[in-house]
Amino acid sequence: MVSPHNAGQPRRSVAQVRYELLTLGDELLLGLTANGHLTFIGAQLGRRGVALQRNVTITDEADAIVKQVRDSWGSADVIITTGGLGPTCDDRTREAVAAVLGQQLVFDPAIEKAITERFANLGRKITANNLKQAYKFERGDVLPNANGTAPGLWVEQDGKILCMLPGPPNELQPMFVEQVLPRLAARGLLLEREAYVQVRTAGIGESSLETRLQPIFDRHPAGLSVAFCAHQGQVDFRLSSPDEKLSQAELEGIAAECVQLLGEDFMCYGHDSMAKVCADLLRAQEKTLAVAETATGGLLANAFTDICGAAKFFAGGVVCYSNDAKMQLLDVPECLLLQHGAVSAENAVAMATGAAETLGADYAMAITGFAGPTGGCGDNPVGTMYVALHAPQGVWSKQLSYPGPRGTVKQRAVNAALDWLRRELFRAQHGVAPTIRRSGVMQ
Amino acid sequence: MVSPHNAGQPRRSVAQVRYELLTLGDELLLGLTANGHLTFIGAQLGRRGVALQRNVTITDEADAIVKQVRDSWGSADVIITTGGLGPTCDDRTREAVAAVLGQQLVFDPAIEKAITERFANLGRKITANNLKQAYKFERGDVLPNANGTAPGLWVEQDGKILCMLPGPPNELQPMFVEQVLPRLAARGLLLEREAYVQVRTAGIGESSLETRLQPIFDRHPAGLSVAFCAHQGQVDFRLSSPDEKLSQAELEGIAAECVQLLGEDFMCYGHDSMAKVCADLLRAQEKTLAVAETATGGLLANAFTDICGAAKFFAGGVVCYSNDAKMQLLDVPECLLLQHGAVSAENAVAMATGAAETLGADYAMAITGFAGPTGGCGDNPVGTMYVALHAPQGVWSKQLSYPGPRGTVKQRAVNAALDWLRRELFRAQHGVAPTIRRSGVMQ
Repeated sequence: MVSPHNAGQPRRSVAQVRYELLTLGDELLLGLTANGHLTFIGAQLGRRGVALQRNVTITDEADAIVKQVRDSWGSADVIITTGGLGPTCDDRTREAVAAVLGQQLVFDPAIEKAITERFANLGRKITANNLKQAYKFERGDVLPNANGTAPGLWVEQDGKILCMLPGPPNELQPMFVEQVLPRLAARGLLLEREAYVQVRTAGIGESSLETRLQPIFDRHPAGLSVAFCAHQGQVDFRLSSPDEKLSQAELEGIAAECVQLLGEDFMCYGHDSMAKVCADLLRAQEKTLAVAETATGGLLANAFTDICGAAKFFAGGVVCYSNDAKMQLLDVPECLLLQHGAVSAENAVAMATGAAETLGADYAMAITGFAGPTGGCGDNPVGTMYVALHAPQGVWSKQLSYPGPRGTVKQRAVNAALDWLRRELFRAQHGVAPTIRRSGVMQ
Repeated sequence: MVSPHNAGQPRRSVAQVRYELLTLGDELLLGLTANGHLTFIGAQLGRRGVALQRNVTITDEADAIVKQVRDSWGSADVIITTGGLGPTCDDRTREAVAAVLGQQLVFDPAIEKAITERFANLGRKITANNLKQAYKFERGDVLPNANGTAPGLWVEQDGKILCMLPGPPNELQPMFVEQVLPRLAARGLLLEREAYVQVRTAGIGESSLETRLQPIFDRHPAGLSVAFCAHQGQVDFRLSSPDEKLSQAELEGIAAECVQLLGEDFMCYGHDSMAKVCADLLRAQEKTLAVAETATGGLLANAFTDICGAAKFFAGGVVCYSNDAKMQLLDVPECLLLQHGAVSAENAVAMATGAAETLGADYAMAITGFAGPTGGCGDNPVGTMYVALHAPQGVWSKQLSYPGPRGTVKQRAVNAALDWLRRELFRAQHGVAPTIRRSGVMQ
């Protein structure tokens, strides 16, 4: 049971608060849309010291909602729902939840006014459907929606909280950050701010990471909690002190010891992507980057252009499927392509150098290969990828090989390229000699 | 309750079989990894006439698993679990499930042999952890894993089915398609093949699509079932006949009537992506495509290079963040950039033409804009995107505007560009005049 944290009560760790996320929508269950709400809300809560206990996705039929909300209401302290509030949705969504809570829905003239004004500003006519969105729970709050018509709804009852959010990400995300997180923090249900230290590593497995760091952890037996989480070739670990025996400064000190030990396997503090880490290193060194891709077809360029302000360090990219494009855009010599083929260490090197020269960049990465499911030949079966790095001190290539479907092969090749670039930039930053490996299979 | 379909029993529609998917993993709940198993399995089941009733994501702690499997076992006919079978996972996952089923785990020498052989082939040493993976349910089958060490596990009990699959997508996906689907079909729990007609539309809302098609549906009142599903600017509808009053040929006839009425709002039959539909039209017309991007930074190129064999129609792409790159790679005149700026209709048109000419392509698409969250100015606030299409008959641009976070703005601009290209290719294919709109905000 949730009880707001105040001076007269024993303090409860936010980690004990049970959170459930209920995502509504047939398009999720039919596999048509990825569940981005889970990714977003899970990450936001995780940063504030709480982990979702469960995420349940169901259709937006009233019966299913009633059954699930009743079940979740019995086991969770905070329930967050997403979707099912649109004007074309089954209008029984709010009613279904109201039935479980034993509440009435009441028409709220303030919501009606906000919807009417929104439509007037857009020059559109309001429909009867839209006015369904003007209902709220009789004992509940309204979370205004600056980016759409359906407001969020908030109920506190039986020592628990239920929060209903609209489905469109551009409506949900600002509402969650600006309204829901502060409300939860004010009630002591999550941390006011991030109160742990997260260290992100790359290129090292979870168990060997743990083995390497254990001696450091062993020196701080009292009050230190360590949580590991592996994902997509990276392993994060979070240091916290649930009983607050260690201060934030002490946690940061322990993290710094780990970082020191990890060397270039340390990627960053916090939550940055590998591309963001590379971007920060490039900016710090006032260097620029260009990329050239065949098989990964824009995925590497896209990783960098996901970063706001990428123009500062990213000179550009070329996706050159045809040999004509390689020759025309990157000055790859025709005789090289005829002799070694497009999927070769030689072509990867030529593409990287061509990209650096054409786009006037200090660093360049090139990827060429067979992502499958067809293609491949002889020494270069499906899954073979060549990555090349052009740096101020020279140009090298590596041969990689990945199993799996096309999308997986592409993503893993991009991750490997990013990690290689990150290590070279790290070494340049710290005055360590570059890893000169003319070729060889990356581990 | 599930009962295998055989001649002596009344036939039950597969749509009534209750499927649940149980996805295990902290990395999902912490928002570090998207739930790709839901997307994959949801889509696979949907094509065979069944919809997942629920997807539950929990941590891989034994207590949580026991609680959830017990709950799901009470309400579902078929439970599929993913993850929790790896050698480093809490080894109580299988035990937790066995406890709920009231079964023992037994060591299976055949699995041990497969694991040992796999390690020998890879030249790696087997660890004690790996032998945890050699246990199966005493009354259950083993689904061999050609791509990893953990086999799938299959139990039929109490008229229900529980199927445990390994977490890595390159292990799960082939196992699901090659082993799980045929087993479920053999038991009458899903259709032997896709037995409905799916029509995919673009650029038209769900309610207006329904209104347009209703007269056709009204002419076939007996036995026709229509299901709509909206996702990412597209709306699919599926025609089926649950009581089999209408044959597959009759369903196809009704779908053809709808397609005729929809004109260019018809995208495709089945499940193809917008990029795949464009690719097929390009191939049919023996035309090639090039792309040039700033703000979407490779996402448009990547949509095409996700298609196996893209080299047949995709000449290449350029990601030109800097003005130098635009001038160098695409011959955009410097005076144009100085006069109109990089985010302008004029630059979009110059980029498209430059891409077509440089890469020798028949069609070219260009996207330039401010994806945010910073950037933007005056008439071009954040979210402003210019899309240009170069076609054999001329070059045009459109101004678009999208709210939302950077990723959403990028994806929506790419979707809009793809749909524009698709419509022009559709018109060229059907001898309809192109939509010449020099500018204007796309609806």
